[in-house]
Amino acid sequence: VKIIIVGSTGTVGKAVTQALKNEHDIIHVAHTQGDYRVDITDENSIKKMFNDIGHFDALISTTGQVHFGLLKEFDHEKWQVGLQSKLMGQINLVSHGLKYINKNGSFTLTTGILSDEPIVYGVAASMVNGAINAFVKAAAIEMENGVRINAISPTLIKESAKNYGPFFKGFIPVDAATAAQAYVKSVEGKNTGKIYTVY
Amino acid sequence: VKIIIVGSTGTVGKAVTQALKNEHDIIHVAHTQGDYRVDITDENSIKKMFNDIGHFDALISTTGQVHFGLLKEFDHEKWQVGLQSKLMGQINLVSHGLKYINKNGSFTLTTGILSDEPIVYGVAASMVNGAINAFVKAAAIEMENGVRINAISPTLIKESAKNYGPFFKGFIPVDAATAAQAYVKSVEGKNTGKIYTVY
Repeated sequence: VKIIIVGSTGTVGKAVTQALKNEHDIIHVAHTQGDYRVDITDENSIKKMFNDIGHFDALISTTGQVHFGLLKEFDHEKWQVGLQSKLMGQINLVSHGLKYINKNGSFTLTTGILSDEPIVYGVAASMVNGAINAFVKAAAIEMENGVRINAISPTLIKESAKNYGPFFKGFIPVDAATAAQAYVKSVEGKNTGKIYTVY
Repeated sequence: VKIIIVGSTGTVGKAVTQALKNEHDIIHVAHTQGDYRVDITDENSIKKMFNDIGHFDALISTTGQVHFGLLKEFDHEKWQVGLQSKLMGQINLVSHGLKYINKNGSFTLTTGILSDEPIVYGVAASMVNGAINAFVKAAAIEMENGVRINAISPTLIKESAKNYGPFFKGFIPVDAATAAQAYVKSVEGKNTGKIYTVY
């Protein structure tokens, strides 16, 4: 089937591509590379992407930024990073994608362990992950024509541990290839409204 | 102790006031009435409120708007209602309140059942409630000087059932006075990072 991977140049996106490419047509989308480009913080860019690609069977998002910092140091701009990118960016991929998704298609978004197990500096990530998890459960009951929606909530990814590891003391990392299997479950399975935790 | 209730003119706010007023000094805050006025969508209004009130022991928020509608009909403006009011409005009450809260003080925010049990038209409410629940768990681990933070997640309130009841078929409403006791638990107890469900 035709699968759009938004964020396919990232660590998880590459592993998801690897896991799905032999059986499916992958359309690579990223900010500065890929078959199509998108800035997920810009709704017009998302609309243009869907208009250019046309109909599809599955959309996987493995992208989205949040600001890491102490709660007391957050200001409007720092909150907006997560609100506009990982939160509304992913929500807008769904809401605009609804017009183009084929019958029995699926959306798979990415959240993360921090909504369940917070860390210092991670308050915006926790908030955004909790928002997306609840969005997915709510959006699932409004889907039509057999369309499904799930989220994947991974723990620290082994390949990223050199950058983020110091903030995640005691978290057991999983490799990207393992996390990628949760995306395969979401796309190839029949569940909807589900948060697949990879931890 | 000195308790700020933001949204004290609402159904839940009135009941919380009733439950706490005999033993505490209540400062009533609302949009157009009360001892102080605040527009929680405006950070400068929140800053002014705290500057005017000064130090306090507990802040309870029983306020925040979200847009109700079908996912496929949401646009930027409709998402912004919940993002700016119930989500960032409540988060900004905490982040700006940090400078004024006394030792061993507490913040108590309001979410709701829809993050757990979605309904049609409730996708923004679900998303915002999930965001606040996760924010509260994450913010709790950054609090200093014994300051605590919890959220109250009520089901449909009996006194509001005439307006919202048709969207909540099968939900057993609780009266506002019952929900108010969860706020008392949050303020008078010692838990932190907790989501008190009233359902």
